[in-house]
Order: sequence, then structure tokens, then C-alpha cells
Amino acid sequence: MSLQKTINGLIRDVPDYPQPGVLFKDITPLLHDAVAFQAVVSAIAAEAGPVDKVAGLEARGFLLAAPVALELGAGLVPVRKSGKLPWETYAETYDLEYGTATIEVHRDAFAPGDRVLIVDDVLATGGTAEAAASLVRQAGAEVAGLSVLMELTFLNGRDRFTDLRIHSLVAV
Amino acid sequence: MSLQKTINGLIRDVPDYPQPGVLFKDITPLLHDAVAFQAVVSAIAAEAGPVDKVAGLEARGFLLAAPVALELGAGLVPVRKSGKLPWETYAETYDLEYGTATIEVHRDAFAPGDRVLIVDDVLATGGTAEAAASLVRQAGAEVAGLSVLMELTFLNGRDRFTDLRIHSLVAV
Repeated sequence: MSLQKTINGLIRDVPDYPQPGVLFKDITPLLHDAVAFQAVVSAIAAEAGPVDKVAGLEARGFLLAAPVALELGAGLVPVRKSGKLPWETYAETYDLEYGTATIEVHRDAFAPGDRVLIVDDVLATGGTAEAAASLVRQAGAEVAGLSVLMELTFLNGRDRFTDLRIHSLVAV
Repeated sequence: MSLQKTINGLIRDVPDYPQPGVLFKDITPLLHDAVAFQAVVSAIAAEAGPVDKVAGLEARGFLLAAPVALELGAGLVPVRKSGKLPWETYAETYDLEYGTATIEVHRDAFAPGDRVLIVDDVLATGGTAEAAASLVRQAGAEVAGLSVLMELTFLNGRDRFTDLRIHSLVAV
């Protein structure tokens, strides 16, 4: 069975979460399956090319970014929601459907010139990933690419990134 | 250099976070270091014995639990804060210093009889870990142990668990 079929078979559609009218893509059945989870991590790592750091987006992105970083021999950088990192941070605020959100990264997370792979579970509108890319550049590092397990193509998140390599294992 | 010295050298003390008087143990410098991060994951996995699932506690616990699960060939189960899991859950409420908190796990996360390793970054008072152990048992699975990177011994969290194997890589 292809990896795409395996992934699609282990992602659960949950209607009306987190709000009415949204069909949520639940990746936990895939995580519960050790063989499928390893295959996903290896596929993301294989596509990445050489990187110095992997930036994982809180919270589901952590679950993929951590093992991808280790498979690549790269350091792991948690990109967190506002107020969750204890030390000095760079911060980036971005628009949501209603209101704004802020994400942060520690100021010592990247060395100048580090090549950084950003990892998340899903690429939806791309707002969080775009803010994460800004954080990486603010820190003087270079965004090597954005890798996700799943891309929701109908939200056109990819269109935000004209100059970035984007890789998704499955698209819906 | 021993793993303990490596870990202690890569954990940053941040005073007065998240509130005045608390000395926060920041593990991000360790995560940034690929060699040290891999050594920590391997040490946790080596100590675990055979398990079917690794339960990671949101959010920092995810960063260790995910690669530990893959190193053990086990499935990964995210234990999340209330409202963050989209499907049907078991829930467990526990006391904090002021008020309460609730954590959840999906009802299909464990098979009956699964041996489950609970992984978090820090064992402090042990309230969250104890609630996670209750969730595992509520689901009909068995708690194989609790593994953490660091144990804050002055908070006596270990005393809650009379019948559980607890492993920490460093104690402060």
C-alpha cells in the first residue's frame, strides 16, 4: 500500500470541530500506529535535504518535528504560543479569521545562517507557518522549507509562499 | 562527559517564570543540541522495557515522547489539555495550587492490556502524571512506568506513585 493510502486511511474526519461547519482532520489514529508514524517521519526527513535545525509548531507540530529533527541529526526548536517560552524571545503576530495570534521563539534558538526546516501537521491557510518563517528570518537564519503531513489545498495556504519549498505528504 | 553533566549543562534556569519566586527549568537549549537530544531520547528508551504505547503529556512532553515512541517501535498517544482533542475522550480532573485542570485522551488511543509508558519533561508535584496514569487505566490499559528528563525532588512528586516505576535522567 502506498504511504499516501496508509496516511489517508489513518486520518479521521471529525465534523464540526473546533466549530460548526469545520471538518477536522484528526491525525491521532496515525500516531497510534507505530509503523505508519515512523513511515511519515522518514518520508518528511527524506525530502528535507540538509538542515541545521527543525522548527516545530506548537502543539501537534511538535509530534512530527521532534522525530524528524533526530532523523536528520538536526537540533529541534519549539515555536510556541505567546507567553509559553520562559526566556527572551522574538515574537510575530498574525491574523486569524477573527482577531490575531502571536507565536514566539527563543532568541538563542538559531545560529546566524542556520538552515531551518519548519514542520507542522497540517497546512491550512498558512498563517502560522508564514509567521514562523518570519521568526526564523528575524533570528538571522534561513528557511530551508516547510514540510507538513497534510495540505488542505482548498484553503490555498501555499499561495502565501512564493519563494519557499513546500512539501506535503498528502493533499486533500 | 556523563549524560547527567551534559543535561545539567544544557538546562537553563530562568528565575521568576511563570511567576515570581519560581525558578523555571528551561530545556530548550538541550533540544537545540541534536547530539544531546538524541542521547536523552535513547536513554529514556533504553530504560523503558517493552511497551505498546508511549503517552506524551502536552506540550513539552510531546517533544520527548514522540521520538521515544519511535525508538521503542511503539505507538504515540497525545494526552492533551481539555478541549484540544477532537474526538470522544476520557477525561481526568486534578488539583492545581489554585483551582483544577483537566486532561484528556482519545477513547481509541489504547487497546485493552496495552503496556503504556508515560513521558514528560519534568516531574514536579506529579499531579499531571498521576492524572495521566488514571486515564491510561480508565481506558483498560496498564501503566508500564513514568519517564521524565528531570525530577524536582524537593516537590516530592514521586511520593504519589507507590506502585509505579519512575525513571528520571537527572534530579535537582
